[in-house]
Amino acid sequence: MKTVRILQAAALLALLPSLALADEAVSELTYILNTFSFLISGVLVMWMAAGFAMLEAGLVRSKNVATICLKNIALFGVAGILFYLVGYNLMYAGVDGGFMGSFGLWSADDSAALAGDFSAGYSAGSDWFFQMVFCGAACSVVSGCVAERIKLWSFLLFCVVLTGIIYPIQGSWVWGGGWLAEMGFSDYAGSTLVHSCGGWAALTGAIILGARKGKYSRDGRVNPIPGSNIPLATLGSFILWMGWFGFNGGSALALGVASSAIEQGNVYINTNLAACGGMIAAMIMVQLIYKKTDVTMALNGALAGLVSITAGPAAPSPGAAILVGAVGGVLVVLAIPFFDKLRIDDVVGALSVHLVCGIWGTLAVAFTNAETRFITQLVGVLAIGAFVVVTSAIVWLVLKYTIGIRCHEEDEFRGLDLAEIGMEAYPDFQPVHTTNR
Amino acid sequence: MKTVRILQAAALLALLPSLALADEAVSELTYILNTFSFLISGVLVMWMAAGFAMLEAGLVRSKNVATICLKNIALFGVAGILFYLVGYNLMYAGVDGGFMGSFGLWSADDSAALAGDFSAGYSAGSDWFFQMVFCGAACSVVSGCVAERIKLWSFLLFCVVLTGIIYPIQGSWVWGGGWLAEMGFSDYAGSTLVHSCGGWAALTGAIILGARKGKYSRDGRVNPIPGSNIPLATLGSFILWMGWFGFNGGSALALGVASSAIEQGNVYINTNLAACGGMIAAMIMVQLIYKKTDVTMALNGALAGLVSITAGPAAPSPGAAILVGAVGGVLVVLAIPFFDKLRIDDVVGALSVHLVCGIWGTLAVAFTNAETRFITQLVGVLAIGAFVVVTSAIVWLVLKYTIGIRCHEEDEFRGLDLAEIGMEAYPDFQPVHTTNR
Amino acid sequence: MKTVRILQAAALLALLPSLALADEAVSELTYILNTFSFLISGVLVMWMAAGFAMLEAGLVRSKNVATICLKNIALFGVAGILFYLVGYNLMYAGVDGGFMGSFGLWSADDSAALAGDFSAGYSAGSDWFFQMVFCGAACSVVSGCVAERIKLWSFLLFCVVLTGIIYPIQGSWVWGGGWLAEMGFSDYAGSTLVHSCGGWAALTGAIILGARKGKYSRDGRVNPIPGSNIPLATLGSFILWMGWFGFNGGSALALGVASSAIEQGNVYINTNLAACGGMIAAMIMVQLIYKKTDVTMALNGALAGLVSITAGPAAPSPGAAILVGAVGGVLVVLAIPFFDKLRIDDVVGALSVHLVCGIWGTLAVAFTNAETRFITQLVGVLAIGAFVVVTSAIVWLVLKYTIGIRCHEEDEFRGLDLAEIGMEAYPDFQPVHTTNR
Repeated sequence: MKTVRILQAAALLALLPSLALADEAVSELTYILNTFSFLISGVLVMWMAAGFAMLEAGLVRSKNVATICLKNIALFGVAGILFYLVGYNLMYAGVDGGFMGSFGLWSADDSAALAGDFSAGYSAGSDWFFQMVFCGAACSVVSGCVAERIKLWSFLLFCVVLTGIIYPIQGSWVWGGGWLAEMGFSDYAGSTLVHSCGGWAALTGAIILGARKGKYSRDGRVNPIPGSNIPLATLGSFILWMGWFGFNGGSALALGVASSAIEQGNVYINTNLAACGGMIAAMIMVQLIYKKTDVTMALNGALAGLVSITAGPAAPSPGAAILVGAVGGVLVVLAIPFFDKLRIDDVVGALSVHLVCGIWGTLAVAFTNAETRFITQLVGVLAIGAFVVVTSAIVWLVLKYTIGIRCHEEDEFRGLDLAEIGMEAYPDFQPVHTTNR
Repeated sequence: MKTVRILQAAALLALLPSLALADEAVSELTYILNTFSFLISGVLVMWMAAGFAMLEAGLVRSKNVATICLKNIALFGVAGILFYLVGYNLMYAGVDGGFMGSFGLWSADDSAALAGDFSAGYSAGSDWFFQMVFCGAACSVVSGCVAERIKLWSFLLFCVVLTGIIYPIQGSWVWGGGWLAEMGFSDYAGSTLVHSCGGWAALTGAIILGARKGKYSRDGRVNPIPGSNIPLATLGSFILWMGWFGFNGGSALALGVASSAIEQGNVYINTNLAACGGMIAAMIMVQLIYKKTDVTMALNGALAGLVSITAGPAAPSPGAAILVGAVGGVLVVLAIPFFDKLRIDDVVGALSVHLVCGIWGTLAVAFTNAETRFITQLVGVLAIGAFVVVTSAIVWLVLKYTIGIRCHEEDEFRGLDLAEIGMEAYPDFQPVHTTNR
Repeated sequence: MKTVRILQAAALLALLPSLALADEAVSELTYILNTFSFLISGVLVMWMAAGFAMLEAGLVRSKNVATICLKNIALFGVAGILFYLVGYNLMYAGVDGGFMGSFGLWSADDSAALAGDFSAGYSAGSDWFFQMVFCGAACSVVSGCVAERIKLWSFLLFCVVLTGIIYPIQGSWVWGGGWLAEMGFSDYAGSTLVHSCGGWAALTGAIILGARKGKYSRDGRVNPIPGSNIPLATLGSFILWMGWFGFNGGSALALGVASSAIEQGNVYINTNLAACGGMIAAMIMVQLIYKKTDVTMALNGALAGLVSITAGPAAPSPGAAILVGAVGGVLVVLAIPFFDKLRIDDVVGALSVHLVCGIWGTLAVAFTNAETRFITQLVGVLAIGAFVVVTSAIVWLVLKYTIGIRCHEEDEFRGLDLAEIGMEAYPDFQPVHTTNR
């Protein structure tokens, strides 16, 4: 009998660490899945940089295509380095209810996880990667708006400040756990923090820079300047749509528990349906107003739907997601002529898509997510708008009065490709010579 | 002694729930992996919509490029909304061996999983997302075939019915657990349910619509109308090839157990080798017949291989997969002139790729998968063919005799881009003026 | 009392298999995650084939675009089939410290895992898929270098030998566990095994083939031949950048334990930062030297950074990764005119990017990874260089003196598209007629 009892005791002793191991294994697997979700979603968001590049390359004139390509890939390089040098820590290190983090190089510390303590939830590197690609996306919003007349290096210097300072500081207010987060402001994947932020910076730039020559006639007429490569613009929109699943889905910030996986599934659906709603609404609006529909409006409608759902893609029902997107699609059709009336020249419609729908999407959260309040959402929108406009204006103006931001008129006429980088995007094709091309 | 025994009993009591928790944790992780597989695979399939868009934009004439881009992205929007409004439930809700599900909005119910019961296996939303992108793919098959002469809105209305009614009903027969599934018909990822279904709808449309002006001369000659942008067509094919890993791999419908992961690996290999086999076979065939090889035939050969393996990518050996693909590649080279002989004008070769190889792939399953019978496969192919042809014909004819489906002859000559959407795809490039461009 | 003891004993007996099951479940989940990492990473690497295709299609003249598209997709088909028929086993089967594996068809055996023994770590198929796409990437390096003058079928026959014999043999020396691995040579994801290997084969080909007509004047001048489609080249670079996360990240060869997931995160960061460093360094270098920056140099700078970090992306700090990439970016700017001085005509800069930076990256490992020695890295670089140069030269020369490798001069002038495949890439656009286009 005693032997039996001793055996039992020994068996229990043997079991206990094994059980502890099983528990640890589960937290390890959760940790892995969270990390992997950041990496894969991050790759999809990184891919959006290519989407912006193709969209913008398709919507500018052929004489400015090589330059816009260079700007788009270069800004992603700038964002990566600056977010490492300054941005990440400024956005996330010790914000603690305040207005910004601290200055300093980012560095990873995964020693706890390597020692078997998985309470961090995911690897530091995967988190940095995921946050960095969002910073790049905010910057991509700007390039399309100020295209076809801004100097290359001036634009890239603006990107240095935007990705190193402006974006991280306003981001710290919400995702870094700053004052807006404490107030209850909610922005799931960045309708305001990414899209409006980029949009406000772009708006300020577009105003300070002025319109392209020939866009607005003295008699008040608006001269359309169609893009040079519609399939590229379409490809860019598809890339953005695809990348948005990582943008919104990955913003669940977890995958290792079933509720997160379910949430990611719902986010995917709502993201997709909002894009559908935005596109179809924009197409119908344009058909009704102009008696013909228009491919660039359909593309911008889809993007409008995507931006609109980004602040709250987890909570709404599918029907509500369609509606949120459709309102975005209608807004974009109205906003494009509105900015033209103000003679603010936005080459690709970035303000209408990212700024206007970014605001709409952030406010719409108050209607679909019971845990948010309209007034808090509005405060967040206004605070971030004011901050980004003021800081961007300072940077644009400093650049303007030092190295200059606008190309010479003759360079703008010849095209930035020859003027700024000394090459053509399509040297083999005979160009059409008409006014404004 | 007694104390020891009581301690032991207590330890056991403490262990039991912990063990139950460990078991639950494993089913939770399985659930997460299944869900994640649907989401990631679904993103890859969604991306195929861009592949179809680029393939078709590359294979039509430049005067119709903007319109085909619009059709492709718009149809994906239509598919998303219709599959939510009607399609999903019609395909999956209560089919029960019958001929269709029920009408009604789809809605997710993940409450069981949120309460810790993971027997559903994956989140409802991830499943909807994965199934919806397949619906979109079926619709994409149609657009390329009827390109360059169909009216935009008529095409989109056809898509409404195809994605809301026709595709889901025939899909319910197999994947919804309907009568064909009960008979033992096997179609792993949709050679018949997606590709032939789209192909039959396209065939019906192409016949009712008639050929493009100038394609077939009165003296019986077939005038080739080459595509306007080969790198775009190549990009589209690469995108489709890439997306097909999600299309076929995700159709394992699971990842959370090792056997599913192994199956996905085998599916990836066979999918890739079938594409290789189809492409190389098509290239060699064309070289032998025409003394020169041809890039569009290589692209269609790769796609032919992919469609051919789709009905059964898990069972074959790698060698068999190469063979199944290679037969597809040969078929496509023969089918393209065959349809031209019948004066059925298929702009991008969609019938040869998706319909012919979809049928071949479905029948081929009988040779590579011992659990299937040739006769059952044939019954499935014929039943779905008949259903889709009849229902599509009704829709095409109703559209034809109400709002019309075919553009005016002069619009076709000017190009649909100017006629239908009032813009050009490439306004900066001087066009070549020759007959048929 | 006795009953209690018996109950306890019974409970323990019941627990033991359950615990064993829990342990097995954990190894099963690890196995699944490792497998899934191979599949998803492999899809990203497969996508790089499209990246090479678009990069090269953008950097050749429009008269050779359709042919380069065909070469790029066809070589991926060749790689898939040859790696199945010969390559995999030659690289991995029974190398055992030696110089090559064995000849024979690859076949998967996952029976152990299907029976519950997960010690293999991942499914055989997922491993094959991941290794095959690397083989394709090595081959893609060659096509761009020898573009615009090589015969299609001769090129594809070279690919047969490269992917079936040359690449696998040198690969076996390291990744197959051959003599270089035993010496301690380290090449994480293939700066040498993939990029230099392709680079040496391309160099040999470019020398034997000779330069394009008109590239080098008799008086020693180098005539720049700019690419025909810069947005496509940009897209290609973005695709490569994206795919590189799978290329380097997946080369952790595991995901199922936390340390691997952490490693993948670090690899993603370093991969991205090296690309950023390479691009920005190249842009600044070009600006300083030529007073203007250049988009193709920025693209090649990013790729240079990516190749440079590939041999050791896990160990360096982020700052070191930027530096390794930046040196690569500087090297590429110097190497391109260097090869021109040698009159070695490299159409897309593949030698500068893949060969030069592949060597640099492999040597740089000695500075960032304490477990490696410079001399061993150098031995590996030289041994593989010598092997690939000698074997490639034999194949190129055999092809040259049998079926021929170079197009007729008049075909080169008309363009390979018309000469080799009888079609144009852009038939709708009026070409510009100048020397050298």
